[in-house]
Amino acid sequence: MSTFKQEPHKLLVIPGPIEVTDEVLYANAHPSMSHVSADFIPVFGDCIRMLRELLFTQDAQPFIIAGSGTLGWDQVAANLVEPGENALVLNSGYFGDSFSDCLRTYGAKVDEIVAPFGDAVALSDLEAALKQKKYKVVTFTHVDTSTGVLSDAKGIAAAVKKVSPDTLVVADCVCSVASEEIRFDEWGLDIVLTASQKGLGTPPGLSVLVASQKAVKVFETRATPVTSYYGSWKKWLPIMKAYESGSAAYFATPPVNLIYAFNASLRQITKQSPSVEERFRLHRETSARIKKAAEELGLKQLPVKPSVAANGMTACYFPEGLTAADLIPSLVKKDVVVAAGLHKDYKLKYFRIGHMGISAIDSSRGDVDKVIAALKESLAEAKAGKNA
Amino acid sequence: MSTFKQEPHKLLVIPGPIEVTDEVLYANAHPSMSHVSADFIPVFGDCIRMLRELLFTQDAQPFIIAGSGTLGWDQVAANLVEPGENALVLNSGYFGDSFSDCLRTYGAKVDEIVAPFGDAVALSDLEAALKQKKYKVVTFTHVDTSTGVLSDAKGIAAAVKKVSPDTLVVADCVCSVASEEIRFDEWGLDIVLTASQKGLGTPPGLSVLVASQKAVKVFETRATPVTSYYGSWKKWLPIMKAYESGSAAYFATPPVNLIYAFNASLRQITKQSPSVEERFRLHRETSARIKKAAEELGLKQLPVKPSVAANGMTACYFPEGLTAADLIPSLVKKDVVVAAGLHKDYKLKYFRIGHMGISAIDSSRGDVDKVIAALKESLAEAKAGKNA
Repeated sequence: MSTFKQEPHKLLVIPGPIEVTDEVLYANAHPSMSHVSADFIPVFGDCIRMLRELLFTQDAQPFIIAGSGTLGWDQVAANLVEPGENALVLNSGYFGDSFSDCLRTYGAKVDEIVAPFGDAVALSDLEAALKQKKYKVVTFTHVDTSTGVLSDAKGIAAAVKKVSPDTLVVADCVCSVASEEIRFDEWGLDIVLTASQKGLGTPPGLSVLVASQKAVKVFETRATPVTSYYGSWKKWLPIMKAYESGSAAYFATPPVNLIYAFNASLRQITKQSPSVEERFRLHRETSARIKKAAEELGLKQLPVKPSVAANGMTACYFPEGLTAADLIPSLVKKDVVVAAGLHKDYKLKYFRIGHMGISAIDSSRGDVDKVIAALKESLAEAKAGKNA
Repeated sequence: MSTFKQEPHKLLVIPGPIEVTDEVLYANAHPSMSHVSADFIPVFGDCIRMLRELLFTQDAQPFIIAGSGTLGWDQVAANLVEPGENALVLNSGYFGDSFSDCLRTYGAKVDEIVAPFGDAVALSDLEAALKQKKYKVVTFTHVDTSTGVLSDAKGIAAAVKKVSPDTLVVADCVCSVASEEIRFDEWGLDIVLTASQKGLGTPPGLSVLVASQKAVKVFETRATPVTSYYGSWKKWLPIMKAYESGSAAYFATPPVNLIYAFNASLRQITKQSPSVEERFRLHRETSARIKKAAEELGLKQLPVKPSVAANGMTACYFPEGLTAADLIPSLVKKDVVVAAGLHKDYKLKYFRIGHMGISAIDSSRGDVDKVIAALKESLAEAKAGKNA
């Protein structure tokens, strides 16, 4: 057992990367290993199996590939949507814009339903659109990291099944896996795509995607060749199956150390206390606490109502008269790192606090206390400064 | 200063991933940091600057992206070759086949010159092909990891400049950067693409590419849209320029910890003793020593002559009557991990030893002694077993 302790550092409470455990960082510092060795194969295989467990799916197919979360969009656009086919993007922020851009790059005809700023797309608008046109995929951002808006994944999947059952339901869950409840099989999702550095509690560098067998079938029966090489499931599917079954196969060298780190984090999430269910509850509880504190400090939140507010992050407008420069550097001086805004029209008006993973579930760390205290002090200082 | 020591482990002498230093692994275990923080920006910027230094280029443009080395092929195919344009692949092994496959995926018309097994393509064949047809790019594998064949990068670049000066010279240097001499500007290379886990001495997970200003211009003036999203330089060029100039920009979350690790390794390679030039010499010296020992043990090498043999790896045929099963597990028992063959027609007939990075340049580690001694013992045991 290692006694590795990470270096003292400023508390990172942006909506990803997040604070990670010493065990995960120690696994990231694993000595170099052969990617085809008998020691490494089960480490990779267990990541595949634990991902299924985390998402409550029996038979969906995980893909774990070196890349940023963004690569998940390429996987969807290049493997599932053939050139000229229709895609419907439910846009609740910056990441909806980008997913559309990606789909168009690979030849999809994209329609968007753009939610008002701070809101999710109404299910009635989705149903109306599905009645108008046949779509190969409907995509939505479960939690848009730019706005902190939470979409109703279960409701969206149900609406698609009702109106257009052949359409694949694609959930961009980069900022929701392991912090928001996701029930892959029960809700009828076809794609959950994410990245390692948010709720999954691992350093950035892994594109993580889970595809239903229905989606795999759509891929396998496509009429035209896949339009990406690095993102092609034709290349990756045999690799994932090989590692899961206990043998190695080669397409590109997997990011061995990151997979050790991911394994360590998935093990903490799925095999240790608290349980996955309990983790969801703790994320909701921490979120409620931070949102209440923000409200008491007079900070208005971006999401227009509590039902569309994420549980792993909080986005707040700066108070009247204050800007990022008045608040964010002052928080850094108190060793608390929050994120600026990220939305083309509003980015200067708000900031974002992440509360996923160990910051949300391990109250003994005192991360939430520290964030709230620093926010209170910095706001008071900023207001005093303006009045001076 | 850290006193971190990596766990005891089997000596990894495959042609990547390679053994890495404690400092690099410790950097990979850096606490989570914001990818847009003032602390992280220069870490990324310095990687860009040190890469230029390592490749002896003044103004070429580096790209450092989360991904496997394979992603470098997508970058070339999607950014530099427009659909229907001609590409010429000099094929000296497995990785030539794959690069062709990648180029075709993005719509290039690919011609190949396939070298005899164990040899590089003759420059006269290259010149003849260039006289027959106009090519947008010529690609070659500097060291083909599957065969250990070294191509004459300088000679290929000179031949292209002479016969077809507009053609871009694309060097797949995954298994050569930092172990073989590469002089980007002097030789007139347009693309050097590589990965973090070989000569660069960093865990796998970074696609590293350096493009000449001429290549960037070709990209900027292309007539059709780029056909990849995640691999698009339209997205990445502003990011690389921002980080180098000291500010942050966002397209996809960079693999922060791997970039800390890459920075630590590049610093050891470019700023510490031995110098880059001296490192090349030490790689040649180590290679000669291993190749001589292999020869003395009766092992025939894949490369058909010394001038096409790589200096960072050695590929040897199994002796008559022995197979991988007779030798590789026996080496593992002696804590030495070598690689099996990797070439569609010959993979069962040979094995590969990597000798890049610290295993090659730091003789105080005794890695080379250990490999040679284990090889000698395992061969003797295997032969005795066969004769028993």
